[in-house]
Amino acid sequence: MLKKENVVNDLLNYGNFKIVQNKEMFCFSLDSILLANFVSLKKSTKKILDIGTGNAPIPLVLSTKTSAKITGVEIQSEVYELAKETVNINNKENQIEIVNEDINEFYLSVESDTYDIITCNPPFFKISNDSHLNESEYKKYARHEISLDIEQILKISRKVLKNNGSINMVHRPERLFEIMRLMHANNIEPKRIKIVYPKKNKPANMILIEGVKNGNPGLNIDFPLFIHEENGEYTKEVKMLFE
Amino acid sequence: MLKKENVVNDLLNYGNFKIVQNKEMFCFSLDSILLANFVSLKKSTKKILDIGTGNAPIPLVLSTKTSAKITGVEIQSEVYELAKETVNINNKENQIEIVNEDINEFYLSVESDTYDIITCNPPFFKISNDSHLNESEYKKYARHEISLDIEQILKISRKVLKNNGSINMVHRPERLFEIMRLMHANNIEPKRIKIVYPKKNKPANMILIEGVKNGNPGLNIDFPLFIHEENGEYTKEVKMLFE
Repeated sequence: MLKKENVVNDLLNYGNFKIVQNKEMFCFSLDSILLANFVSLKKSTKKILDIGTGNAPIPLVLSTKTSAKITGVEIQSEVYELAKETVNINNKENQIEIVNEDINEFYLSVESDTYDIITCNPPFFKISNDSHLNESEYKKYARHEISLDIEQILKISRKVLKNNGSINMVHRPERLFEIMRLMHANNIEPKRIKIVYPKKNKPANMILIEGVKNGNPGLNIDFPLFIHEENGEYTKEVKMLFE
Repeated sequence: MLKKENVVNDLLNYGNFKIVQNKEMFCFSLDSILLANFVSLKKSTKKILDIGTGNAPIPLVLSTKTSAKITGVEIQSEVYELAKETVNINNKENQIEIVNEDINEFYLSVESDTYDIITCNPPFFKISNDSHLNESEYKKYARHEISLDIEQILKISRKVLKNNGSINMVHRPERLFEIMRLMHANNIEPKRIKIVYPKKNKPANMILIEGVKNGNPGLNIDFPLFIHEENGEYTKEVKMLFE
């Protein structure tokens, strides 16, 4: 656990927002912004669930694009407090609800077929004995599959997504096939991916994927996203996400 | 079947090669060139199998990059003749063997664990009742899963590939997940993909995929390939493939 005297919250500006973050927990990351911008929103979208919401960057970005109600679930109480502060400071209390609960418990009390859309920027790494010795508890939970793994996310999605509802995830390329396979095993069809490359002539380092509950087979691969120009600057496409 | 008087074979120049083709059968396509250039060849590569070799573009391109023996199998006897002519005209008889047989029969007599690498530019389309009424027999076989589908290609690969040998395919994005799933079901791990986009801001229209027999999990996504510039010209990367 953090020593209280080390908890110093920053305010980060993202577009018109302020995001409350704490560097000992984890920082606002590009992954979440990319995921929020990848989601296909419809006029009929009424309810959205963000699993492992952190300091709520995904609900916040989505709230600028839809009037749907958004629920963010966060297991860690100190991180939950940041998310609440972030929602309040941006006057989004009427649209975004933050719940401090383990999603593995939370979903048990949710009715089947409730959400139109689920988003999740999950922990990327399998648990290993020595890979996270120097991390804070907060970062361990956010980065390693301690309380949540891909299989569980898709089991939850299978229950609480509406028919034809979508689960949207950001993850590492090396786990793309595993994600697709676990989607399929849970009656969720991989329908669309967008691949993210750090710069020219480098392999991909991130994937965005949309699966649709009871969807028909047939994958679409969107035009990719490149993060950096050859000179190291952000590309025009990434800069636009921050405007 | 073709009327004999319509059979007029062309000679197409590709780099330093001449390729014998007939427009009533099917023409040389970029797909095969991209696939041949996608394959990871090693110094230890001794034997390569090209399934559904057509007029042998894949063996021909591979022969410039490796001294491995290459076997191309083609079911249609008239197409087989084109492949033979192509091999002869390029003086590659010592390296490339063309077999006129149905691969579904051919592989039964091949020993297990024979090939280091398999390549296949397979028929892309599922059989439907009305989608190919106006095509020649030759094109039907090349384009529709009449005599060969993904499942069968992978069943064959499972048998005749060496341990850690690779199967390399070109296909449509909408079938990527199906290919990966069938690879997995045949103890072949999807290891690398390269995605092909027709031009900027368009979705992908082709994928290249490498699966490794008994490989470890973990997918790599290569930097993508773009076919056309915004002005319609081939990109520099594609032009280089033709030099």
